[in-house]
Amino acid sequence: MMPEIYVLRLGHRRNRDKRVTTHCALVARAFLAKKMYYSGEKDENLEIKIKGVNERFGGDFSIEYVNGWREIIENFQGKKVHLTMYGIPILEEIEKIKSFDKILVIVGSTKVPKEIYFLSDFNIAITNQPHSEIAALAVFLDKVFDGKELNAEFSNAKIKILPSKAGKRVVKLV
Amino acid sequence: MMPEIYVLRLGHRRNRDKRVTTHCALVARAFLAKKMYYSGEKDENLEIKIKGVNERFGGDFSIEYVNGWREIIENFQGKKVHLTMYGIPILEEIEKIKSFDKILVIVGSTKVPKEIYFLSDFNIAITNQPHSEIAALAVFLDKVFDGKELNAEFSNAKIKILPSKAGKRVVKLV
Repeated sequence: MMPEIYVLRLGHRRNRDKRVTTHCALVARAFLAKKMYYSGEKDENLEIKIKGVNERFGGDFSIEYVNGWREIIENFQGKKVHLTMYGIPILEEIEKIKSFDKILVIVGSTKVPKEIYFLSDFNIAITNQPHSEIAALAVFLDKVFDGKELNAEFSNAKIKILPSKAGKRVVKLV
Repeated sequence: MMPEIYVLRLGHRRNRDKRVTTHCALVARAFLAKKMYYSGEKDENLEIKIKGVNERFGGDFSIEYVNGWREIIENFQGKKVHLTMYGIPILEEIEKIKSFDKILVIVGSTKVPKEIYFLSDFNIAITNQPHSEIAALAVFLDKVFDGKELNAEFSNAKIKILPSKAGKRVVKLV
């Protein structure tokens, strides 16, 4: 059984973070999370963009703005995993994490409130080096799903990419 | 033997791409690439930022602007792997790729020139879904290095993060 994954992206700023949060949401979707919540500023354009990708490429991923992060974390019925460069190396905890049914993966922005570290069941590092919450999320999900997400099929897709040695092959399904 | 990895980031735009290219460079460094070349617009701030991370967190990663992508690709003495959602699934080619000594990993931006697909030895997909070049680069390097990058030590670091179950522990080394 693969765990059911939800993502919480903290502190979105409509202008400054628009591309980074979009990348987070697209990674969450492509790497088989069910849903991404985001806090900070509500962003219609972000939501429209993700819905557009869903419509074309399929699947039932969704994105939802939440007014504050505390309520969603405290009420989440499952394990909470915060991705941070200050945490415990992923390989030390991955087997335990894979055994859970339902996980909220929390990814920060510039300043993560200190409480997040203590409200989370796990603080997990994808390397203890500074890099990218987008990369951390992707590598985390790849480990949780054991690479199975890499060849996943999405239901109700309107278009589908066929793997090519060179160039682009896209088929319309409807 | 682990392959020696170089990254080429295509088409950087100083304003629009500053955070995305910074994330690419930080991922390249944290996931043990030797160097990142970038084409498009030269960006002093990007270079200063990456040098600052190197100075504090160690290692000998470097970043270099290149005037055009063609020369660097054509002159590269090693295999060229272009990451693209249109490519062949990574798991089909990873064993072959891991056997090479020296690899140039090419990551695009919005519009990748068609020739890139044909100048590359491999076009590799990290899922055939739209997501993020930052995520694709991280997952690719994690597969090439078999997760060994996740616990790597960086030489000459001034500060180092000690893994913690909660909170932050940073030690000064000089």
